[in-house]
Amino acid sequence: MELNEALAKLAELQKKLYAYSTADAALYLDGTTVAPKDTAEGRGVALGVLAGERHKLFSAPEVGELLDFLWGQKEALDQLHSRQVEELRRSYAQLTRIPADEYMEYAVLVNEADDVWHRAKERGDFELFRPVLEKLVAFNIKFAGYYDPSKAPYDALLNEYERGVDMKYLDEFFATLRERIVPLLHAIGEKEQPDDSFLRRHYPIEAQRKFSDYLMEILGLDRTHCAIGETEHPYTLNFNNKDVRITTHYHEDDVGNSMYSVIHEGGHAKYELGIRDEVQYTCLAGGVSMGVHESQSRFYENLIGRSLPFIQAIFPKMKEFFPEQLADVTAGQFYRAVNKVQPSLIRTEADELTYCLHIMVRYEVEKQLMVGTLAVKDVPETWNRLYKEYLGVDVPDDKRGCLQDSHWSGGAFGYFPSYALGSAYGAQMLKNMERDMDVWGPVSRGDLSGVSEWLKEKVHQYGGLLEPADVVKNACGQFDPTVFADYLEQKYTELYGL
Amino acid sequence: MELNEALAKLAELQKKLYAYSTADAALYLDGTTVAPKDTAEGRGVALGVLAGERHKLFSAPEVGELLDFLWGQKEALDQLHSRQVEELRRSYAQLTRIPADEYMEYAVLVNEADDVWHRAKERGDFELFRPVLEKLVAFNIKFAGYYDPSKAPYDALLNEYERGVDMKYLDEFFATLRERIVPLLHAIGEKEQPDDSFLRRHYPIEAQRKFSDYLMEILGLDRTHCAIGETEHPYTLNFNNKDVRITTHYHEDDVGNSMYSVIHEGGHAKYELGIRDEVQYTCLAGGVSMGVHESQSRFYENLIGRSLPFIQAIFPKMKEFFPEQLADVTAGQFYRAVNKVQPSLIRTEADELTYCLHIMVRYEVEKQLMVGTLAVKDVPETWNRLYKEYLGVDVPDDKRGCLQDSHWSGGAFGYFPSYALGSAYGAQMLKNMERDMDVWGPVSRGDLSGVSEWLKEKVHQYGGLLEPADVVKNACGQFDPTVFADYLEQKYTELYGL
Repeated sequence: MELNEALAKLAELQKKLYAYSTADAALYLDGTTVAPKDTAEGRGVALGVLAGERHKLFSAPEVGELLDFLWGQKEALDQLHSRQVEELRRSYAQLTRIPADEYMEYAVLVNEADDVWHRAKERGDFELFRPVLEKLVAFNIKFAGYYDPSKAPYDALLNEYERGVDMKYLDEFFATLRERIVPLLHAIGEKEQPDDSFLRRHYPIEAQRKFSDYLMEILGLDRTHCAIGETEHPYTLNFNNKDVRITTHYHEDDVGNSMYSVIHEGGHAKYELGIRDEVQYTCLAGGVSMGVHESQSRFYENLIGRSLPFIQAIFPKMKEFFPEQLADVTAGQFYRAVNKVQPSLIRTEADELTYCLHIMVRYEVEKQLMVGTLAVKDVPETWNRLYKEYLGVDVPDDKRGCLQDSHWSGGAFGYFPSYALGSAYGAQMLKNMERDMDVWGPVSRGDLSGVSEWLKEKVHQYGGLLEPADVVKNACGQFDPTVFADYLEQKYTELYGL
Repeated sequence: MELNEALAKLAELQKKLYAYSTADAALYLDGTTVAPKDTAEGRGVALGVLAGERHKLFSAPEVGELLDFLWGQKEALDQLHSRQVEELRRSYAQLTRIPADEYMEYAVLVNEADDVWHRAKERGDFELFRPVLEKLVAFNIKFAGYYDPSKAPYDALLNEYERGVDMKYLDEFFATLRERIVPLLHAIGEKEQPDDSFLRRHYPIEAQRKFSDYLMEILGLDRTHCAIGETEHPYTLNFNNKDVRITTHYHEDDVGNSMYSVIHEGGHAKYELGIRDEVQYTCLAGGVSMGVHESQSRFYENLIGRSLPFIQAIFPKMKEFFPEQLADVTAGQFYRAVNKVQPSLIRTEADELTYCLHIMVRYEVEKQLMVGTLAVKDVPETWNRLYKEYLGVDVPDDKRGCLQDSHWSGGAFGYFPSYALGSAYGAQMLKNMERDMDVWGPVSRGDLSGVSEWLKEKVHQYGGLLEPADVVKNACGQFDPTVFADYLEQKYTELYGL
C-alpha cells in the first residue's frame, strides 16, 4: 500500500464515521424536539441498524490493517494524521477487544435500562432498577478489562472520559476541594441568606425566549451556525464546527433556570464552533474530552455568567424583557440571588459551591461499586449517608436520591468527575486569562469577545488535535486544584461577608 | 441457500434500506425546519456519504443473487414476499444498469442544479439555468434507456412515476380534459366573479396555527403519530406508518393558502398512516405511486375541503379563530371564494379547474424535450405560447414562467402528470364512495371518519402490496377521465350558474 492511498482511505473512513454520527444526531435531535410522542419504535429500528452498520464498518479487519500500516509510517505523518491514527487505533482496539456478542448484549441492556430507570425514577423505586444496575456494573467491570487490562477497572473507565485521570488523582483532587469547601459551607450556614424570591415570580415563556436570543447575542453565538431549541433536558449537539444546536427548558416560575442553561450550553457551543476547519469530518472534530468541555460550559455559566460585572452589564436589558418582575430588583440583588448557597438534593439545581459535593458523592459510590466494596443493593443507603455527611441534607426518597441522574442507566461510569474537573480547569484558565488581559472591564460593558478569543486560542481551536492533558496544560499550566478552591473562597467570603 | 435464510436476508436488506431513508429524512426535515441558515455543507457531506453507502449496499452482486434466487422460488412465496422481490428486482435492475460513474456524475449535477435553479429563478434568468437543464435532459434520456430500452425515453420515465402510464395514455387523458375544461373556462369568463377579497384580510399567524390544529383534528390525524411544522414550501414526510410529518407555510394576508396546504398534506399523511403494519420497514412501505398519493391529498383538499358541506361544517369554528376577519362573511360566500376560477401564472396557486391546464403545459414541454422536438433553449418560448393557448395568460417573465417549479432541477421528468391523474382518480373514488355510503351527511356535520375508513379500506392499507394500477382499479374501477370532467362541469356549472 502506498502512503497516499492509505491516507485517502483514512479520510474516507472518517468521513463515513462522521456521516453515521450525523444521522444519529439528527434522529436524536428530532426525537427530543418535534417528533410526535409515539414514534420511538421506528426511530429505534433505524438507530439500531445504523449502529450495526457503523460497527461493521469500523471493526472490519481491513481497518485494523490500515491503522497498523499507518502507525508503522508514523514518522512520515504530520501531527494531524498521526493524531488521527493514534485516536482511531485506540477506538479500534477498544471496539474489537469487546466480543461482538457482548457488545450487542450490552447495547440491548442499555436500551432497556433507560426505560427501566425512567419508570423506577418516576415511582422512586430503586428495587425496580437494581437488577439492571447490577448487570450494568458487571458489564462495565468486564469492559474495563478490555479497555486496559493493566489498570483497575474504575481507572480504566475514568481514562475513557478524561485520559490520564485515575483514582489516585481524583482522591487527591476531591480531598483538596472537600477540605476547603466544607468549612466555607459551615461559615455560610451561620450567615443571613439573600432574598431570591423574585427569581420565582411569573416570567412568561415568550419573554424568556427573547431573553435567550439576547443571551446568545451577548455570548457571540452566530445564529447562522447555531440554533436554540426547547427540550425536556437542555443539551448541546454538534454536527460540525459550522452547525451546533443548543436547547433549553423554560420554567415560567424560575427565570434563572433557563438563563443559566442557555449560558452553560452556549459555552459548549462556543467550544464546538471554535474548532478549526482542518479537523472537521475526522475523529479529531469535536471537543477533546468531557472535562475540557465542562470547563468551557461552566466557565461561561459560573465564572462569567454568575459574576457581578456580567450581571451588571446585562441587567438593564433584562429589565426591558421583564420590566414588572424586576422593577424592585437591583443588579447587586440579582447577583446575590443567583449565587445563593444552599445544600440541596438535586445536582442539576445546585449552586456553584455545593455542586462539587454532589459530584463527590457520585464519585465515591461509583468507585466503591467498581472496586467491589459496595454492593448495588446498598447504593441507596451509601448515597443517603454521603449526602448527610457532605451536604448535611436528609434524602427523603430515591427519586431525589440515587435515581436522579441518567448517567448510570446510560452505562456511563466514570463520567461524573469530569464536571468537577471542568470547574477546576476553568478557574485556572480565568487566573491565566486575568494575567494576559483585562477580563472584567470589557465584560462589565457586555463585551465577551476578548474572553472568547482567549478561550478559542488556548482551547477551542484544537478540537482533538492535542491530548486532553495537553489542552489543559496549554490553558491552565500545571493543574492545581487549589486555584479553584481559592476562587470559591474569595467569591463566597465577599458574598457572605465571612 | 435455504428459503428461510434467504427471506431473513431479504428482511435484513430492507431494514437497512429503511434505516438509510430514515437518516435521509431526518436530515432533510432538520434542514428545512430548524437548522441554522449556513449549515448545508456539513449536511451535504453526510448525505453524500450515506447515499454512497446505500448504493454500495443495494447494488452489491450478492443482492442480485439473493433476488434471483427468491424469484426462482416465486411459487413458494406469499404475496407479501413476492411483491417485495418483484419491487426490489425492479429497483436493483434500474440501479445496476446505470454505470456507477454516470450515477455519481448525475448526483453531483442534481445537487448543483438545485442551487443554480434557485439563483436563476430569483433573477428570472433562464439563460443561467439553461446549460444545467440541457445536461439534466440529456442524462434523463440516457437513463431512460437504462430503465427500459424497449420504450421511448419519456415513456420509460413516466413509467417510473406511475407504472403503466405512457404518452399514448396521457395524450388521450389530457385531450379529454382539455375538451371539457376549456369551454367551461370560457363560459365562466362571461360570468360575474365572486368577491374573495376577505380571504386576504389580516389573519395573524398565531390564530392560523390554532386553526391548523383544528383542521388536523377534523381530518382525524392522530397527533401522537403526526406532527405539523413550518417550512418555506409545504410537504409531507413519512418515516413509517406510525410517524408522519406535514408542514405548512403561513401567510398573514392569505388564510386560504395554509388552510388548503394543511388539508392537502393531511391527505398525504392519512395515506401513510393508514398503511398496514405488515409492510413496514420493507420496500412496500409508503404510498404506492405519485398519482395515487396525489389522489389522496387532492381528495381531501378539493373534493372534501372545497365542498360546501365541509365548509358549512367548519365555518362556525373558523369564525371563532377569526372573529373579526370573517364577521361579515357567510359559509356560502367562503365556499364561492375558495372556488373562484381564475386563469393564472403559478401552478401552486391555481384553482381546481385550471390546475390541470398548468399540468398540461408541463406535460407538453417535457414530452417534446424528451422526444427531441424541442430544444432546451426554446423552452421559455414554448412555455409562454402554451400558457397563452391553454390559459389565455401572458407570461411576463421566466420567474413566473418556466422557472417556477423545482421538479426539473431535481431531475424529475415525468412527475407532473401524476398531479392531474391523482385528481381524476379522486373524482372516480368519490363517485364510488357515494354509491357505497352517505358521504355528505356526515361531512356536513364535520365527521370525516366514514370517508377516511373507505379510503383506508380501498387505498391506504395496501401501501405497495398491490401494483399502482390495481390500487386504482380497486378504488376507481375502470379508469375513466370523463368522471373527473363530469365532476368539474357539474361543480362549476352550479357555482357560476352556467
